[in-house]
Amino acid sequence: MRIGFLGTGGMGAAIALRLQAAGHDVHAWNRTPAALQPLLAAGVTAAADAAGAAAQPVVFSMLADDAAVDAVLEQGGALAAMPAGAVHVNMATVSVACTQRLAAAHAARGVGYVAAPVFGRPDAAAAGKLHVLAAGAPSAVARVRPLLEAIGQRVWPFGDDPARASAVKLAGNFMLAAAIEAMAEASTLAQAHGVAAADFLGLMSETLFASPAYRGYGALIAARRFEPAGFRLRLGFKDVRLAQAAADAVAVPMPFASVLRENFLDALAHGAGELDWSALSEVSARRAGQRD
Amino acid sequence: MRIGFLGTGGMGAAIALRLQAAGHDVHAWNRTPAALQPLLAAGVTAAADAAGAAAQPVVFSMLADDAAVDAVLEQGGALAAMPAGAVHVNMATVSVACTQRLAAAHAARGVGYVAAPVFGRPDAAAAGKLHVLAAGAPSAVARVRPLLEAIGQRVWPFGDDPARASAVKLAGNFMLAAAIEAMAEASTLAQAHGVAAADFLGLMSETLFASPAYRGYGALIAARRFEPAGFRLRLGFKDVRLAQAAADAVAVPMPFASVLRENFLDALAHGAGELDWSALSEVSARRAGQRD
Amino acid sequence: MRIGFLGTGGMGAAIALRLQAAGHDVHAWNRTPAALQPLLAAGVTAAADAAGAAAQPVVFSMLADDAAVDAVLEQGGALAAMPAGAVHVNMATVSVACTQRLAAAHAARGVGYVAAPVFGRPDAAAAGKLHVLAAGAPSAVARVRPLLEAIGQRVWPFGDDPARASAVKLAGNFMLAAAIEAMAEASTLAQAHGVAAADFLGLMSETLFASPAYRGYGALIAARRFEPAGFRLRLGFKDVRLAQAAADAVAVPMPFASVLRENFLDALAHGAGELDWSALSEVSARRAGQRD
Amino acid sequence: MRIGFLGTGGMGAAIALRLQAAGHDVHAWNRTPAALQPLLAAGVTAAADAAGAAAQPVVFSMLADDAAVDAVLEQGGALAAMPAGAVHVNMATVSVACTQRLAAAHAARGVGYVAAPVFGRPDAAAAGKLHVLAAGAPSAVARVRPLLEAIGQRVWPFGDDPARASAVKLAGNFMLAAAIEAMAEASTLAQAHGVAAADFLGLMSETLFASPAYRGYGALIAARRFEPAGFRLRLGFKDVRLAQAAADAVAVPMPFASVLRENFLDALAHGAGELDWSALSEVSARRAGQRD
Repeated sequence: MRIGFLGTGGMGAAIALRLQAAGHDVHAWNRTPAALQPLLAAGVTAAADAAGAAAQPVVFSMLADDAAVDAVLEQGGALAAMPAGAVHVNMATVSVACTQRLAAAHAARGVGYVAAPVFGRPDAAAAGKLHVLAAGAPSAVARVRPLLEAIGQRVWPFGDDPARASAVKLAGNFMLAAAIEAMAEASTLAQAHGVAAADFLGLMSETLFASPAYRGYGALIAARRFEPAGFRLRLGFKDVRLAQAAADAVAVPMPFASVLRENFLDALAHGAGELDWSALSEVSARRAGQRD
Repeated sequence: MRIGFLGTGGMGAAIALRLQAAGHDVHAWNRTPAALQPLLAAGVTAAADAAGAAAQPVVFSMLADDAAVDAVLEQGGALAAMPAGAVHVNMATVSVACTQRLAAAHAARGVGYVAAPVFGRPDAAAAGKLHVLAAGAPSAVARVRPLLEAIGQRVWPFGDDPARASAVKLAGNFMLAAAIEAMAEASTLAQAHGVAAADFLGLMSETLFASPAYRGYGALIAARRFEPAGFRLRLGFKDVRLAQAAADAVAVPMPFASVLRENFLDALAHGAGELDWSALSEVSARRAGQRD
Repeated sequence: MRIGFLGTGGMGAAIALRLQAAGHDVHAWNRTPAALQPLLAAGVTAAADAAGAAAQPVVFSMLADDAAVDAVLEQGGALAAMPAGAVHVNMATVSVACTQRLAAAHAARGVGYVAAPVFGRPDAAAAGKLHVLAAGAPSAVARVRPLLEAIGQRVWPFGDDPARASAVKLAGNFMLAAAIEAMAEASTLAQAHGVAAADFLGLMSETLFASPAYRGYGALIAARRFEPAGFRLRLGFKDVRLAQAAADAVAVPMPFASVLRENFLDALAHGAGELDWSALSEVSARRAGQRD
Repeated sequence: MRIGFLGTGGMGAAIALRLQAAGHDVHAWNRTPAALQPLLAAGVTAAADAAGAAAQPVVFSMLADDAAVDAVLEQGGALAAMPAGAVHVNMATVSVACTQRLAAAHAARGVGYVAAPVFGRPDAAAAGKLHVLAAGAPSAVARVRPLLEAIGQRVWPFGDDPARASAVKLAGNFMLAAAIEAMAEASTLAQAHGVAAADFLGLMSETLFASPAYRGYGALIAARRFEPAGFRLRLGFKDVRLAQAAADAVAVPMPFASVLRENFLDALAHGAGELDWSALSEVSARRAGQRD
């Protein structure tokens, strides 16, 4: 199948390669063309522009944020280039409001819209281990489902309203940030009582919390290994704010999200924006005087 | 070996039975004698009083809180009854300050003191699946280690200062409460956007957070099944406050712990003290107007 | 002097009337023309549209929020209608980002821009008792200063960058909301210990906190008199979020603002959006079980 | 009248001198006798010990905290020395629980007990400008009321339960701490937008918040003048924790109190315990990167 692909950063590239490897004919575009280079060797075709990539029966996109999505789809003409009857699979983490806008804009043009944000890092994407959410009109989801299954280890359907997948993704990222903060506070406390963070977090992530999130972030926090960034703190802050915006829209108090917000700001004020978001843990340690 | 056992509530009874089943001669005492009844059929001996149970070379205790520990050990005469050279294994979740007091009091009497709080619920105790922390003088820990291994699936040593095991236990319970709160806020948000809590928490606890804590509490929260209480909310609040007291002593800010404190108070003000502590999740739902 | 006036809601009307009473020739416009009616009797002229009102050497505006400001100035053509050399005095509480955008847009058209948000309620405006902030190019501020003095009891200059006046206004409104919350929590505590809120808040607002804010809001809280709304809770929430947005832009953690955010959401989820914002105090009482 | 006085630190000394100056015969005791020296010149008699000072028909005490109160009244024998029918006026800021214990202990000995905490600093005490709360049995309050009026500018009765005066005092101190924090966050925000803290806080404390608390603390915060300490930060933290304990007892959530708790810990971790408690404001500035 001919597939358009918009946005081949770390995650996008890994996903595009899996689609190509699964036997599809991927036409990709990226804002900075250099990022396309490694894909060409695998048989991916470089589209001349976003509109060119989007003129396919199925289009995937993995763009950075709301602004990039708007820029490429609206100003960049990608949405206008999608043929009626096409399906657009948006894998980016965007605001619920953005998803609602996009769903309406696609419907108005007769293009199917599937919100398909993913859980997993680039290495998981390359290995086909992503968890892929999917929400949109049943016919559109059905059409792209084999493609989603080629990308991830499991597809998680969330009904026909694309906004639900966005809400789930933001709620999930909030839970990741909350786990980082909980580990940070708890290990700062343990450390102040003479227990090494590695010992404490080791115990936790092998017992009650034996799971990818706690094991992975627990190890980074204990080792204070915040570079290279798997997911930049600045983007983590953005996602917490998107979760808060989603909460505003439906009047849901989320006091943990507010604590995260304040601690992300503290981290940003101390220059941690480009580090991995597990560097949020340094805020606890610094406030306790363990970094002076 | 003759072993004294003080406090045979749900957890204590399960542990005492495992010691007896491992071939030891357990002499048990409980404040309300009725709780001893089921142990007698398994061969446990009922001690006449706390002092009688404590007059053994090794004494275990699993009492409710600081006040119960003080009442039994000091006023109840149990500490005075322990022979010099004995070792006391305290499995209760008590304050760091209490542990420090007890360690000093035992040292003054020539009795070894091992802080050995556990992670796991009564059914895990019955199945020998507990995780057992252990901190105290190396010789004392070495002497009781085979007993701890008979109780749990793994023993986690935390050095020679008993206070460390208390701090680790409190930090761990804080992390459990934080996980409950994070699931509560996130699933309230998801629900307000049309996603059932069971669907959202199911996704989370099978993927990023696939672990005993998230699976177990996620299921309770989604089903709103807060009775019977595995661990009562009132006790969860107590443990958060003990974590805060441990943080006060070393000047560690823990904003998540503060959010938990306020939400536990909200839950208590609405009559949830005797429910399972996963009922903390109802606070989020109520504040969002989902319980009106 | 001929003065244009955009937006004659409660505050705007009171201010426009003071300008007219001071001998000026006010040409006013309002989105819903009915609100202009009472002004005409006082000699104010009704402009045909926003552009008509704006085609004056000095233009005041008191619009609801960022969106209304954009709608009237940009889409409504008011900014384009202002003659080069005119000065626009914007009294609305808008975001810092909005102020920065407007300052640039006015500069590009050769129109002076003075940010002049006020502290005070409509009755204070009618009595000339407002406190008026003023920030903008010195020549522009100098030109409108006599007009500002005709409106308020005192003009508070904040330099040549209009954004500063916006930041000060938002920080001030944050302090008001914080005072309401502090009174709410403290009087809920006092009440739970048997002290009537009126007695407690009476003491506070006659002694340590003897000031307009505490006296005024303390009386409303104690009497639970939230209608008619002097300032609607929904708008108070908006202003807290604008303060948070201003904090985001410069990486300033504000944990009190976050608590306010969550409690405003709780209030909104319980239908208090159109009440006076002192109804925020009901959240504390409800959470403590005093409203069940 | 012969009056006993226990505790002549800064506040106690000023009050004892006013009683002596009002024509009474004050017999004072202090843990460190040096603090009595300045009182002797004014005619105050130095008691040999706490019991000696307490053997009077009316006894005032102004001791540091719960522990000091217990030490002097119980272990020090002061309570046992008070004659039946005497009245003890306790002006210290103690926990609600301590007040309840003391009220019962005094009643059991036939000694009247009046909780009479004060608002004001030592200089206000010296000038007779304190605000004095009073709660206790009507007959006891009536008997000491002329003495309280000699001390303060106004006496505020709070009924017959001494615990109410303690709750009011703690709630009031909470409000002071909240005002400090609100000013800190708001002025940090203003400063990050280019407005000097002195300009911003000057505006606030001359307008909406024109009151002793905002004027006084606003000036200290703006000038960063935290020495000499009018009220030490360490004691401010103690009082916030007492307010939290009072809230625990009646299940009242107080999220602002929790924020204060965490920020006090941050301040303590950075060595501010002996500074004036307005130094709490440095936490906001430091977190925003304004002190690096």
